[in-house]
Amino acid sequence: MSGTMTTGIRHVSGGTITTPRGFSAGATYAGIKRPGADVLDLGILSTEVPCAAAGVFTTNRIKAAPVVLCRRRLEAGYIHAIVVNAGCANACTGEQGLADAEEMAALAAAKLGVAPQQVLMCSTGVIGATLPMALIRDGIEDVNLSKEGGHDLARAIMTTDRVPKETAVQIALGGLGVEASIGGIAKGAGMIHPNMATLLCFLATDASVEPGFLSGALRRAVDASFNMVTVDGDTSPNDSVILMANGLAGNEPVRGGTAEADEFESGLQEVCVSLARAIAADGEGATRLIEVTVDGALTADQARAGARVVSGSPLVKAAVHGSDPNWGRIVAAVGRSGVEVEESRIDLFLGDVCVMRAGHPQRFDSSRARSVLDGPEVAIRVHLNLGDACATAWGCDLSEEYVTINSEYMT
Amino acid sequence: MSGTMTTGIRHVSGGTITTPRGFSAGATYAGIKRPGADVLDLGILSTEVPCAAAGVFTTNRIKAAPVVLCRRRLEAGYIHAIVVNAGCANACTGEQGLADAEEMAALAAAKLGVAPQQVLMCSTGVIGATLPMALIRDGIEDVNLSKEGGHDLARAIMTTDRVPKETAVQIALGGLGVEASIGGIAKGAGMIHPNMATLLCFLATDASVEPGFLSGALRRAVDASFNMVTVDGDTSPNDSVILMANGLAGNEPVRGGTAEADEFESGLQEVCVSLARAIAADGEGATRLIEVTVDGALTADQARAGARVVSGSPLVKAAVHGSDPNWGRIVAAVGRSGVEVEESRIDLFLGDVCVMRAGHPQRFDSSRARSVLDGPEVAIRVHLNLGDACATAWGCDLSEEYVTINSEYMT
Repeated sequence: MSGTMTTGIRHVSGGTITTPRGFSAGATYAGIKRPGADVLDLGILSTEVPCAAAGVFTTNRIKAAPVVLCRRRLEAGYIHAIVVNAGCANACTGEQGLADAEEMAALAAAKLGVAPQQVLMCSTGVIGATLPMALIRDGIEDVNLSKEGGHDLARAIMTTDRVPKETAVQIALGGLGVEASIGGIAKGAGMIHPNMATLLCFLATDASVEPGFLSGALRRAVDASFNMVTVDGDTSPNDSVILMANGLAGNEPVRGGTAEADEFESGLQEVCVSLARAIAADGEGATRLIEVTVDGALTADQARAGARVVSGSPLVKAAVHGSDPNWGRIVAAVGRSGVEVEESRIDLFLGDVCVMRAGHPQRFDSSRARSVLDGPEVAIRVHLNLGDACATAWGCDLSEEYVTINSEYMT
Repeated sequence: MSGTMTTGIRHVSGGTITTPRGFSAGATYAGIKRPGADVLDLGILSTEVPCAAAGVFTTNRIKAAPVVLCRRRLEAGYIHAIVVNAGCANACTGEQGLADAEEMAALAAAKLGVAPQQVLMCSTGVIGATLPMALIRDGIEDVNLSKEGGHDLARAIMTTDRVPKETAVQIALGGLGVEASIGGIAKGAGMIHPNMATLLCFLATDASVEPGFLSGALRRAVDASFNMVTVDGDTSPNDSVILMANGLAGNEPVRGGTAEADEFESGLQEVCVSLARAIAADGEGATRLIEVTVDGALTADQARAGARVVSGSPLVKAAVHGSDPNWGRIVAAVGRSGVEVEESRIDLFLGDVCVMRAGHPQRFDSSRARSVLDGPEVAIRVHLNLGDACATAWGCDLSEEYVTINSEYMT
């Protein structure tokens, strides 16, 4: 899946959210996050023309104010911009939170000269604190948008992320003979010191895409990427993935069931998987990316559940951290995931080292297995040998530093 | 729930699994676990007369050989003894594992002069290794059973447990005018260095109990106790809770729907909750017991789910470890638990400190909140104010030491 270059998909060197035509962005330090060198905490993404847009939001029943408003605005129609801050989640903030989120969007709309209802807003940071609106007001004035501003925006949404996550691809929309781009930035994952949570991902494309297909394509791409990343199993009230498609590539709108739809969807999935892997690799305290593939499952849902449970098991994660080829924990995690299994059919590999075949422990070279687990990317493959379904999930190892990060004082 | 003394239930000082009449136990060091001062790893529990017995076993689809055999033997009839080892789980061991488990029981049966089919066997320890039968054979010969042997048996089932868990209560079977006892030992929780897993709990009573009611009472007691303990969310192929009732108290068999049934069930639940709390407090790396109560839920299942998810949240556990009154994580965990909530009705307390009322953050004295979180037992209460259902779950804080324990080399 990851790293493959589907025909027609080309990664753009230094690509980001503003790589597609017509998108600009900018960010500033408004004073919401703690000060530091080059710290940014407030930014805007804008497009020259109103956009078809789609969103996927947290399943948590506690939803932050911006999530509530974004869902409404996406249902209502086209979108012109997104304004986002880090350092304060505007979650568990009641009516005040909704009013603040509305004002934040209205300020950005006034700056850009667009309709307030066409501006989305996102927040990430401490839960239970209201937005510092004086800082937000001044900050929005200070933002300067540019074609290169995607890199700053990627940094402005970071909380405990160690590195910004950004990428872009070019796709050739086959029969249409049109080149289009898809770019994205993300922050993740691991709910975070002091209590920042949240996956945020913004995606932009200059392809013209029929809105109904856009929503479905985003949902499927999220299912194959961000929904397959586990850092600690906690979801946040603010998780949001938003995709804007401004159509400036000039193609006929992409519709479902066409070759162009497949091309667009492959490109979108490539961007999302790339960002998802970057989030897993940068999980709090992480020193390794873990990629778990379950195949031979009876159904896709079962394969997904198995891969997710293994990648999220604290015991598997801790074993990988210690380069401990303690494969019994992997089998036990598969066993509790709800996947149909027949113990006597399971094959299990750490990298290319087979540790279990047809349900029986295999003799293996433990130094080779440890060197697999020592690498920056650890592949775990479970073959259930019952059906044809396959899924891949991503996680990271569990280190002492995760605990240190997450047990520090809130204040 | 915990710590209460239901009328007629009296804790027995120094009580253990052999406190009820007619039970004896013994243990030895067979050489399965690593050597150490006073280490024991093989033991037997026996009763003078065959027993009605009931069991609750792992829901993991990968089941260890002894679990497969115990389920069969409990369906078939009365039980005379349990033989148990620590250090090797006899899980993922195929046909050889079943043969070894049968032999282990047969050896204990021969020693005790009882039918092999009336002996249960349990194992806990490394997954994927076969039992060292030479050590088991010699060890079973060496076990000496006595009325005081419950204490040794409690130590023989330990893996990374720091302290043995044992307790007993006396109950007065009301109208029957009979005193009976219920005793238990347990090991837990946290799958464990090198890859030991497993909750094991053995319960014994001298009350006479009708077998159908015995099974139901055990299931309900496990649901209110061990099923409400979360250390790391991993289940093992070996989890087993077994209850033996030998009837030597001389009462008329306890039947469902009677006052005696309520008395017996309260006593059984008291023993199970006491052991469950001890397991949570002794979770790997734990420095605090966390007790989470969710009330005002619409249904009991929802209250249970909410309490379990909060007590199992890595972020909540890490915050408690750092005495960080980071209550947004608790609200976020409730929100993802599947419980029906209305944010504007939630009250949240850390000990007696109210941090959220009717969905609004409250000003609170953070030094008082920290001192609540600093204590050996941390109470978290979430009032949903939607219905009448209530549940309590137990967990422990997440410390750097958990990671250290679980990332050490297998070999």
